[in-house]
Amino acid sequence: MSVDELVGQVERARKDYEALVAKGLKLDLTRGKPSPKQLDAANGVLELSGEPVAADGTDLRNYGGLQGLPEVRAIFAEDLQVPVEQLLAAGNSSLELMHDAVVFALLGKVPGAEQRWADVEGLAFLCPVPGYDRHFGICERYGIKMIAVPMTPEGPDMDVVERLVAEDAAIKGIWCVPKYSNPDGTVYSDETVRRLAAMETATPDFRIFWDNAYAVHHLTDSPAKIADVLALCAENGHPDRAFVFGSSSKITFAGAGVAFFGSSPANIEWWLSHTVKRSIGPDKINQLRHVQFLRDADGLRAHMRTLAELIRPKFDAVDKILTAELGGTGLASWTAPAGGYFISLEVPEGCAREVVAKAKAAGIAITPAGATHPYGDDPTDQVIRIAPTYPELPEVEAAITGLATCVRLVAGEKLLADQAR
Amino acid sequence: MSVDELVGQVERARKDYEALVAKGLKLDLTRGKPSPKQLDAANGVLELSGEPVAADGTDLRNYGGLQGLPEVRAIFAEDLQVPVEQLLAAGNSSLELMHDAVVFALLGKVPGAEQRWADVEGLAFLCPVPGYDRHFGICERYGIKMIAVPMTPEGPDMDVVERLVAEDAAIKGIWCVPKYSNPDGTVYSDETVRRLAAMETATPDFRIFWDNAYAVHHLTDSPAKIADVLALCAENGHPDRAFVFGSSSKITFAGAGVAFFGSSPANIEWWLSHTVKRSIGPDKINQLRHVQFLRDADGLRAHMRTLAELIRPKFDAVDKILTAELGGTGLASWTAPAGGYFISLEVPEGCAREVVAKAKAAGIAITPAGATHPYGDDPTDQVIRIAPTYPELPEVEAAITGLATCVRLVAGEKLLADQAR
Repeated sequence: MSVDELVGQVERARKDYEALVAKGLKLDLTRGKPSPKQLDAANGVLELSGEPVAADGTDLRNYGGLQGLPEVRAIFAEDLQVPVEQLLAAGNSSLELMHDAVVFALLGKVPGAEQRWADVEGLAFLCPVPGYDRHFGICERYGIKMIAVPMTPEGPDMDVVERLVAEDAAIKGIWCVPKYSNPDGTVYSDETVRRLAAMETATPDFRIFWDNAYAVHHLTDSPAKIADVLALCAENGHPDRAFVFGSSSKITFAGAGVAFFGSSPANIEWWLSHTVKRSIGPDKINQLRHVQFLRDADGLRAHMRTLAELIRPKFDAVDKILTAELGGTGLASWTAPAGGYFISLEVPEGCAREVVAKAKAAGIAITPAGATHPYGDDPTDQVIRIAPTYPELPEVEAAITGLATCVRLVAGEKLLADQAR
Repeated sequence: MSVDELVGQVERARKDYEALVAKGLKLDLTRGKPSPKQLDAANGVLELSGEPVAADGTDLRNYGGLQGLPEVRAIFAEDLQVPVEQLLAAGNSSLELMHDAVVFALLGKVPGAEQRWADVEGLAFLCPVPGYDRHFGICERYGIKMIAVPMTPEGPDMDVVERLVAEDAAIKGIWCVPKYSNPDGTVYSDETVRRLAAMETATPDFRIFWDNAYAVHHLTDSPAKIADVLALCAENGHPDRAFVFGSSSKITFAGAGVAFFGSSPANIEWWLSHTVKRSIGPDKINQLRHVQFLRDADGLRAHMRTLAELIRPKFDAVDKILTAELGGTGLASWTAPAGGYFISLEVPEGCAREVVAKAKAAGIAITPAGATHPYGDDPTDQVIRIAPTYPELPEVEAAITGLATCVRLVAGEKLLADQAR
């Protein structure tokens, strides 16, 4: 773009932004929440037919069953790539399980550990960025140092990861969202998973926190497949390296789903040694409702296709509008995920905060810039997370059109200022 | 009893025990579980009528609502003696909340604390005995030293408690089941509660873990009342001293109830600072089911009267049979609680383990002797916990008759051996 063209572009953006503010919008794209229509599609999970009894005759109303209902574990085992006997079904949130895994490791030695993590000087986790703010929140709450690692189109930059874990025994974990990552929508390549499983670490008790949150959340007819992390860890002599997490929060109900924890037999035993002191068993009746609603792995996949029909138009709209408004301008790039809940929008250096602020001033709430990075600090201030699932399609369209206006304005002014220097 | 009478008594007990074993019973009085009939009485909680929406219009299927549904908190606030704005409704287990309170205090300073409990040298809890094994299990899992304090008919021996907490700043907590205590059925006197609230402690961050598990679990028409611990702590200048716990596990479903945490505003804020990193909110739909089933505090009390009709005959049977079999023998004493889930049976020194073992050999499973004490160690080996709620009445009768036979045998032989020395 010539300077004149740029000036003209910024002028138009200013007018468009004034018009946007005048509209007095009130739109919210901050969180990855299922829409009411998605929830409606899962209303069957409210129903319980017959007696609240397990296949083996257990009365599910009473105490017990720490490992969760075998029937619900069987439905999710294949897609979570965990043998059913190593997969536990728990409460309504996998975030709880990730938090508790960190806490249990802080206070009780994980298999292979020489000390509890609470006693490790300089305890640190690797955080592929952009990443999920709630992962980072757990680390921050417990004073675990976060080391950012860049994402590539194949997953975390494994050259960086391998170097860091080989050097520093205080690095005990890495956060991974291996399929349709939050927020890029990246699918880890088989080679990335293999290298994570095989790499040499300075500490014997390194753990991969494998948050397979979007295991079945496909938006296309060719579902992404990722390598089997538990199997690869075992094959490479690190059987206890991976903790696998998943949930039905974005399958049935976000507030009343079922969460899963899967790992090696030794890790499961360790996990249960903690949870047996904490829990009298999960809500098995809710698990039975899930069994009756989803029926089996095929039923789960069929339900996910129903949800994809609701979500895909929103993802398509985001891509279409961003292409129309920003394509070829050099002002932004964005991802076009084949699944998951998020789209990542990258703007010129130093612009993300200002874009989000401008959008907010125009009544469009976007996840705070920086949320995708440890400590809320995106060092180049470039990444904006778009969460298009919750609002209805016209609202998504209005919000993204408005967001694109903010990008044109902020990034255009930035370019202009840079050229003036 | 003369030696001859004693010899005769032991002879009869031996014959009765042989006959008991020959019956090949298979009875279980180990845990405080609701019976199927109690659970049936709460089956209404399986039903959800109308839309899964809160009184304020919130869609309960989605994320959010960390504090729990206000409507369910309102039902329990009065009986738990916690202002509704300081009462949180959570998952299906108050044990989880007690565990998490310990963990959060280990890893993040409680209000008033100078350090996290994980960094306290010689960290210890007071454990009134006999007490609840699952409380002790949490301490043991996290290496918290347990100091036994004797129970009196008014609650923990406050002379001992006051002396210990005044001396030792590493004593950070005390486990209390203030109403119908597990296993004695003791109701704390107002004076005990006042002294707990008022006592001077060597540490600024002492906490009372107030497990009000049996707040509404009355067996008579004159429900026990306990003093308001939160109010007394505040009045006495220790507003943050008490953590209050409760649940509907033994009201609705043991596996699918609602648990509660109540405390001072500062403690609630501290609690939420942890749970906001852990949770996306509890299962609010299950909380709504509870609201629809229980309706209000009066509905809760009416339901408890229904349950009392089912439980009281079992407690009466235990007392009647123990009186008939052991009354006046000097071989045992036992409590006759006016509520709760347990009866405590005291046998002569050194006999409890052997009685439980003999009962087990006769097919009657009783909570392991020692479970009522820290580290499973009842130093005088005298306390046996009876949990009569789960089996049907004829089974309770058969089990207690058998247990009494074991007491007559073991305690009789013990007395005989003592006399022979």
